[in-house]
Amino acid sequence: MSDLLIKNARPMGEATADILIRNGRIAAIGAGIEAEGVVTEDAGGAIAIPGLVDAHTHLDKSLLGFPWYRNEVGPRLIDKIDNERKVKRDYGLDAHVQSMRQSLQSVSYGTTLIRSHVDVDTDQGVIAIEGVMETRRQLAGVVEIEIVAFPQSGLMRRPGTLELLDRAMAMGADLVGGLDPCGMDRDPKGHLDAIFALAEKYGRGIDIHLHESAELGAFSMEMIFERIRAHSMQGKVAVSHAFCLGDPDWTMTQGLIDTCAELDVPILTTAPPSRDAPSLKRLHAAGVRFGAGVDGFRDTWGPYGNGDMLERAMLLGMKNNLRRDDEVAMALNVCTTGGAAVMERSDHALVAGGRGDVVLLAGETLAEAVVTHAPRKLVVTAGNIAARDGKSLRERP
Amino acid sequence: MSDLLIKNARPMGEATADILIRNGRIAAIGAGIEAEGVVTEDAGGAIAIPGLVDAHTHLDKSLLGFPWYRNEVGPRLIDKIDNERKVKRDYGLDAHVQSMRQSLQSVSYGTTLIRSHVDVDTDQGVIAIEGVMETRRQLAGVVEIEIVAFPQSGLMRRPGTLELLDRAMAMGADLVGGLDPCGMDRDPKGHLDAIFALAEKYGRGIDIHLHESAELGAFSMEMIFERIRAHSMQGKVAVSHAFCLGDPDWTMTQGLIDTCAELDVPILTTAPPSRDAPSLKRLHAAGVRFGAGVDGFRDTWGPYGNGDMLERAMLLGMKNNLRRDDEVAMALNVCTTGGAAVMERSDHALVAGGRGDVVLLAGETLAEAVVTHAPRKLVVTAGNIAARDGKSLRERP
Repeated sequence: MSDLLIKNARPMGEATADILIRNGRIAAIGAGIEAEGVVTEDAGGAIAIPGLVDAHTHLDKSLLGFPWYRNEVGPRLIDKIDNERKVKRDYGLDAHVQSMRQSLQSVSYGTTLIRSHVDVDTDQGVIAIEGVMETRRQLAGVVEIEIVAFPQSGLMRRPGTLELLDRAMAMGADLVGGLDPCGMDRDPKGHLDAIFALAEKYGRGIDIHLHESAELGAFSMEMIFERIRAHSMQGKVAVSHAFCLGDPDWTMTQGLIDTCAELDVPILTTAPPSRDAPSLKRLHAAGVRFGAGVDGFRDTWGPYGNGDMLERAMLLGMKNNLRRDDEVAMALNVCTTGGAAVMERSDHALVAGGRGDVVLLAGETLAEAVVTHAPRKLVVTAGNIAARDGKSLRERP
Repeated sequence: MSDLLIKNARPMGEATADILIRNGRIAAIGAGIEAEGVVTEDAGGAIAIPGLVDAHTHLDKSLLGFPWYRNEVGPRLIDKIDNERKVKRDYGLDAHVQSMRQSLQSVSYGTTLIRSHVDVDTDQGVIAIEGVMETRRQLAGVVEIEIVAFPQSGLMRRPGTLELLDRAMAMGADLVGGLDPCGMDRDPKGHLDAIFALAEKYGRGIDIHLHESAELGAFSMEMIFERIRAHSMQGKVAVSHAFCLGDPDWTMTQGLIDTCAELDVPILTTAPPSRDAPSLKRLHAAGVRFGAGVDGFRDTWGPYGNGDMLERAMLLGMKNNLRRDDEVAMALNVCTTGGAAVMERSDHALVAGGRGDVVLLAGETLAEAVVTHAPRKLVVTAGNIAARDGKSLRERP
């Protein structure tokens, strides 16, 4: 929580202005602001945006810091899940160290707010939750981390997992996670009843992975909607991936999207080039909160990605065939205020009173900044300088 | 055409070997090669691959070197086409300068072989063909450029264009281009008859842009197949984009793909995240030649891209959901030998007798090189060093 004066920035690519941060929050934005004794940075005309928001990732999974992982995994979902548990044991993967590595890499790219799913299963118990919580403590003031207790290996199919999720929530996880109640867990009623009951017990929200597509995904969405109504959890249940919302069957998907709007169900995407995925403009038109994330990267699941949410904005723009400057800026907004809205941070914005998270970008317009995703000039978290010229000030373990 | 000895490289990520190039061709690959008096480079264990091949781009369109172009273009294809002609006039765009800029940027990323569509229309005539031909002359020995005379603004709908295409072929363009005979030109029979007749007249091949999807694209493909048979042009007609081959209707697309294999119709993709597109594994299984390109970039059509075919290999991998190391290597091969095969360069390979185009990449495996697409350590074209540490030796105008 610091004071900082950023001179000569262009908020959202518009006219030059100064940004004064006091006690970690934006005190003023405008021309010719002076503040005696306050540390001052000259932005030199760089674009200023709010901190990037990685609203869907897996901080405990990355193999950053290890030699390249040669992926020889089988094609089925269960192959990947089983392989991951094996690699974790073989490598002795430490969720705290890995989440420190990934978080600081994300900070170097301008991310100041993260929602991370963290594995909970009967092999490793809640140790990954502990590890990421330790990272959250150590990086307070550098990046804010929200933790979803995530039953990656299944819930109903692995007895004992529900009790571990309960323990994770008691320890301080922020949200209850879920995963493909049909496709993965083979018991949609059991799975969804369990996670909604747990969320209600702790007065917390839910963020459920839903890869199920077409009618199967629609069925699971309907099961989720029924429980949101029954538990009065409007606004508290997010769906990640939601490939079924990108299904070509327009009528089916519009019904689902309209219900997402009615029940205030936020949607999170990773903009996957290989899959149907929710359309940015369509969700915007329906008024559905919409955020994005890098997903896991450099892990046993797949090799792509590096944690850069500005590159993700580019992929989101490409996925949605957004070409005009104003359209590319929409993709960027999903990766800043969009994700923040999903995480209920309405103060995550470049306005007086907003949180003092600011990223300085190279480029003439927001679109150019997205397309080139050049190293970030400066990353500020709650008024603290967290990264400069593409490098996190705090060293990666 | 030079001599060069590259020591301590790892061809295709395998065991360390030396690569001797003599008179622009690979003379030997193996351990402990010595060659007195020959310029020697130490690869330091870097991966060596053949030159990257950008088999579908538009060298005359990029706005590289100009300030950021604020794209405010309308949504229809014709909006983009009409806007581009206007911008070309307003900017006084010089196809030679722009193609020099783009080509040298591509060389800096390791591309040694390019197939470029070049606009021919009744506004500008064949001046862009002249410009890119001049670039081809000036960059001989740095990058090889194949030119497609491309009726971007339509053929049948703009009388006079056919005569200009004829002139472009007489001047030395390598292939006849075409564009959406139904969707754009509104006269599939007229359009296809005209370009096939022109190709036959000059004894040249065809590369046709086909964005038409589903049944419309299938119809145009069938019209193309009929003319390949009638003109005995098996192996001489490539289809770019071919979105219809990625249609979810498996039976329809398999029929088209099988005919592509039967008539040896190469397919070129840009791996578009927003569209159905031909599947790499499916084309491979059918034995269809398959290359990739960056398409136009930083132009009036759209902002994305930079010319990097290693990044394109990543996008192709993501598009095709390729995650295993061996799968990612398949995506890379499409961007090297795949494109070269489309361009009938069977000698574009790291083998004795192969063309002396070699790129040194950072990374432990081919997959890592693709995913990180770090600056290229060295780019060699026909034995000449063309770029080093991500920078073209020849300066961009």
